[in-house]
Amino acid sequence: MIKKKFLLATTNQGKIKEIKDYLADLPLEIVSLQQLSPKPIFIEKGKTFQENARGKSLYYSQQHSLLTLTEDSGLEIEYLGGAPGVFSSRFSGPRATDEKNIRKVLKLMKGVPPDKRKAQFVSCLALTTEGKTIKEIKESVKGIITLEKKGNYGFGYDPIFFYPPLKKTFAELLPAEKNRVSHRGRALKKLKEFLLLYLESEKKT
Amino acid sequence: MIKKKFLLATTNQGKIKEIKDYLADLPLEIVSLQQLSPKPIFIEKGKTFQENARGKSLYYSQQHSLLTLTEDSGLEIEYLGGAPGVFSSRFSGPRATDEKNIRKVLKLMKGVPPDKRKAQFVSCLALTTEGKTIKEIKESVKGIITLEKKGNYGFGYDPIFFYPPLKKTFAELLPAEKNRVSHRGRALKKLKEFLLLYLESEKKT
Repeated sequence: MIKKKFLLATTNQGKIKEIKDYLADLPLEIVSLQQLSPKPIFIEKGKTFQENARGKSLYYSQQHSLLTLTEDSGLEIEYLGGAPGVFSSRFSGPRATDEKNIRKVLKLMKGVPPDKRKAQFVSCLALTTEGKTIKEIKESVKGIITLEKKGNYGFGYDPIFFYPPLKKTFAELLPAEKNRVSHRGRALKKLKEFLLLYLESEKKT
Repeated sequence: MIKKKFLLATTNQGKIKEIKDYLADLPLEIVSLQQLSPKPIFIEKGKTFQENARGKSLYYSQQHSLLTLTEDSGLEIEYLGGAPGVFSSRFSGPRATDEKNIRKVLKLMKGVPPDKRKAQFVSCLALTTEGKTIKEIKESVKGIITLEKKGNYGFGYDPIFFYPPLKKTFAELLPAEKNRVSHRGRALKKLKEFLLLYLESEKKT
């Protein structure tokens, strides 16, 4: 089978793994930004996940003329007026790490009662080809910010994001379990349905 | 002189006063939402100040067929990833007051060093007539979140917004002083220039 070259335009290792696993059975040759040279750089300036996903997608597809997927995602905490939001990965500053970001959130949420700890993870996907974004998907999942870290799977804020239906944090879920319920998993499910139809229609033309 | 009827579509008393004062010398008969019956209600759902200002402006101008000005504004704190942002006036929940909002911000910023207390006030204006937004203006002013309240003028977060060039919080500035440097004052200055030309061109047609 001829595989279509497909640029997965993200440098986040956690996201690359989740997205590659999810799309593994499609006829795609997935290329990531690390495999390209020179590595183009896109500065995220959007006020929303959609703006960032769309902006990155258009930028990288223009650089490489490939079918390009980008994702922007993050955590929105109600008590913090939606923060960290688009700043999720750099919430603790220019040298942010998952660990430092989590510490900052737990400090800000110190003493905040359980009923005020509502949050949601949001994932926005944008798929672009030939200078046009042909599909945008936004999905979210609701949870509660825990009082401390729990679990060793996943990445980002997963250890402090408690998912009530499964009574576990996202970091306590096996990758396949997380994919079934997570914001990114839900968005990728829709993307996969779209890609199947798209690749089918490409074959015909 | 015939005054043009002009809807100032906000219910915030602090804003009404500042905007009315600023536009007092223009040939406008300024009507506020309180003077209209039934009072229409617009729920702000935008992710940005622009979206909210534009949305409100279109909505209210359709309800009343008047030249309509709306404003959305708020405080963006760098350490909080831009929060409270569009949630500024309801940051402390459904029964938010200026007092409660300020207390929440000071609590979240407790122990944060001076160099990490950067913030900006943002004001977005939208002017609409006959279903079209004819002018949008966005202005901002940079400051520092103080450790405690200072000053009795102004409203909102003014008592904890320190403005370095004048070495005072916005609540320590007299109304005219604040208007000269504030986000809203800067936006209103540009609006006034636009309105003068607009009213002039209307006279001719």
